Amino acid sequence: MLMGADGSAFEVLDQTVLPFTVRFLTVDSVSACARVIRDMQVRGAPLIGVAAAAGMALAAHADAGDVALRSAASELLASRPTAVNLRWAVAGMLRLLEALPLAARADAALVHARARQNAEHRCCERIGEQGFELLRVAAHSPRARARGRLDVLTHCNAGWLATGAWGTALAPLYRAAAAGMELHVWVDETRPRNQGARLTAWELGQAGIAHSIVVDNCAAHLMQRGMVDLCLVGSDRTTGSGDVCNKIGTYAKALAAVDNGVPFYVALPCSTIDWELDNGVAEIEIEARDGAEVLMHEGAGADGSLQRVRAAPPGSAAVNFAFDVTPARLVSALICEHGIFAPDQAGMSRLRAMASSAPERV
Amino acid sequence: MLMGADGSAFEVLDQTVLPFTVRFLTVDSVSACARVIRDMQVRGAPLIGVAAAAGMALAAHADAGDVALRSAASELLASRPTAVNLRWAVAGMLRLLEALPLAARADAALVHARARQNAEHRCCERIGEQGFELLRVAAHSPRARARGRLDVLTHCNAGWLATGAWGTALAPLYRAAAAGMELHVWVDETRPRNQGARLTAWELGQAGIAHSIVVDNCAAHLMQRGMVDLCLVGSDRTTGSGDVCNKIGTYAKALAAVDNGVPFYVALPCSTIDWELDNGVAEIEIEARDGAEVLMHEGAGADGSLQRVRAAPPGSAAVNFAFDVTPARLVSALICEHGIFAPDQAGMSRLRAMASSAPERV
Repeated sequence: MLMGADGSAFEVLDQTVLPFTVRFLTVDSVSACARVIRDMQVRGAPLIGVAAAAGMALAAHADAGDVALRSAASELLASRPTAVNLRWAVAGMLRLLEALPLAARADAALVHARARQNAEHRCCERIGEQGFELLRVAAHSPRARARGRLDVLTHCNAGWLATGAWGTALAPLYRAAAAGMELHVWVDETRPRNQGARLTAWELGQAGIAHSIVVDNCAAHLMQRGMVDLCLVGSDRTTGSGDVCNKIGTYAKALAAVDNGVPFYVALPCSTIDWELDNGVAEIEIEARDGAEVLMHEGAGADGSLQRVRAAPPGSAAVNFAFDVTPARLVSALICEHGIFAPDQAGMSRLRAMASSAPERV
Repeated sequence: MLMGADGSAFEVLDQTVLPFTVRFLTVDSVSACARVIRDMQVRGAPLIGVAAAAGMALAAHADAGDVALRSAASELLASRPTAVNLRWAVAGMLRLLEALPLAARADAALVHARARQNAEHRCCERIGEQGFELLRVAAHSPRARARGRLDVLTHCNAGWLATGAWGTALAPLYRAAAAGMELHVWVDETRPRNQGARLTAWELGQAGIAHSIVVDNCAAHLMQRGMVDLCLVGSDRTTGSGDVCNKIGTYAKALAAVDNGVPFYVALPCSTIDWELDNGVAEIEIEARDGAEVLMHEGAGADGSLQRVRAAPPGSAAVNFAFDVTPARLVSALICEHGIFAPDQAGMSRLRAMASSAPERV
């Protein structure tokens, strides 16, 4: 994401046309910002937070009055209901700006949005370092050594596309590849929007990391057959008790991991933890998206252009929940910028203490 | 499947173009028979068995000599490695024909293939009756009554398309719908070939049974949220210990069912049980199909014609296992033509005794 110098616009990579087209979009209004988030041209919990902060900067640039800022905040908050980073970013920006004199707001908003972006990048880099240690341990196992490589399964896309740099789940993999580790990544296709097949496979291909795409149905089988050393996924929102809300299908992968003794790691910036929440299944609202996302499969046609085909009879409808909740009991550890934490009471208390004593979240 | 009067050809519904086109194929040689099975124009464990028997009848019609019959058997056996009905059908037919004088073989083969088809239909009808009792019990639960309907989740297609009539997993649903039960079926899309979205949704739509398509990733979430009363799937091959080999993704659905206290039922004709096998995970060879099935999504384009789009970057490959094994410990019960059986030692012994005392499998 590239922020313009004067705060009147920013540019984002349109993730809905990747990997077939690399196209940047100019976002020059709050409505445009809400739209690119809702339509998932911008996606990934951390990047949504950064984009929302930038959206508030656009609002302040156009009209820094309280009424205009609150209206902008409402519009941005409505774009994706499950994303907690969106809420933090918008609420934090609103609090900051309302405390400032009108004339200072536009500049402060831009500075703040940029600082948020930089903080996310640093955070991801640290997640990469922390997770790399776990990968090194796993690569040392007899099974991985016998195979001559570490096999990691990931779901959806939690790479640099989702964060702006490094990524969360993919950060340790980039770090390990840079250190020369032999890696192979099982990339869950991640229906219905195929972020795995489209975005993660593209990111890994660009980075020269060996990978194979599998349908979401295949992950449990691979684990059952001893073909996966560990799972590594991101999180859109995590409760104070360690329940992980992430892309639909994450919960099923965690069940398979536990059934087969495969470690299931979740990489996340602490900003995605919602300490107010305890029971993720009971308390997190799950976004239901248009069933057309399920029924219409999108990809490149023979001529390379983006096309959609319908893989269901005309009379059949679909139900389309975008996220699910993986209970903490299924998660081996949380990997965040402060270290590795067991998602149990002791681990979460320790994490909360470290997160709150860290320099305040910008 | 329609068998011609003289044994020189039979007709099958081409399942690779459904639900967009209803097209029959004429199969008039062993090679054509092997091809329609391999290319999954004919699919579903019971129907593959019937088609293979009909293929042997084609062979006997053309040349009933031992060498020709054995060559035909080899070609048919190679078409799908995991399907046990295929092996039974071909081996049974070969044994029967080799015991007959040359002149009697062609007629006997045709009679035998027809008898096999009729037996499969009767078998499915009985599975429907047995399973209907379980549905009646489930529909009586407070949760289903509060919802005003029974919610059943199914994976892949185990309907009449897979068997010739009724189906296995869908047979109880057709029976229940005929009895006026309020039903709603969650149809797993069933990547990579989308048999759920394409075939099961079409079958249910034709029968007027309410249903919603969901991505395979969604099934565990639905169960976690109390939106599924029971799961009902078919089986391609079941071990003597009750391990179930079925379409890739079945195992993950069973894990989710157990984690949420949802009954997980497998409907199957006893002909799919391989009593020689004990440990399904260790002993069953899993068919690995072309990765293109994963990478290329097929469906109807805007003009209604069947088209394929690629949902992955050009440099990325896919791995494509077609089946997985659900350990017996995750299965609530097997529903077969002889009744309902727990997949434990006592249940499997009882089932084996009943299956072996039943009129011999044709």
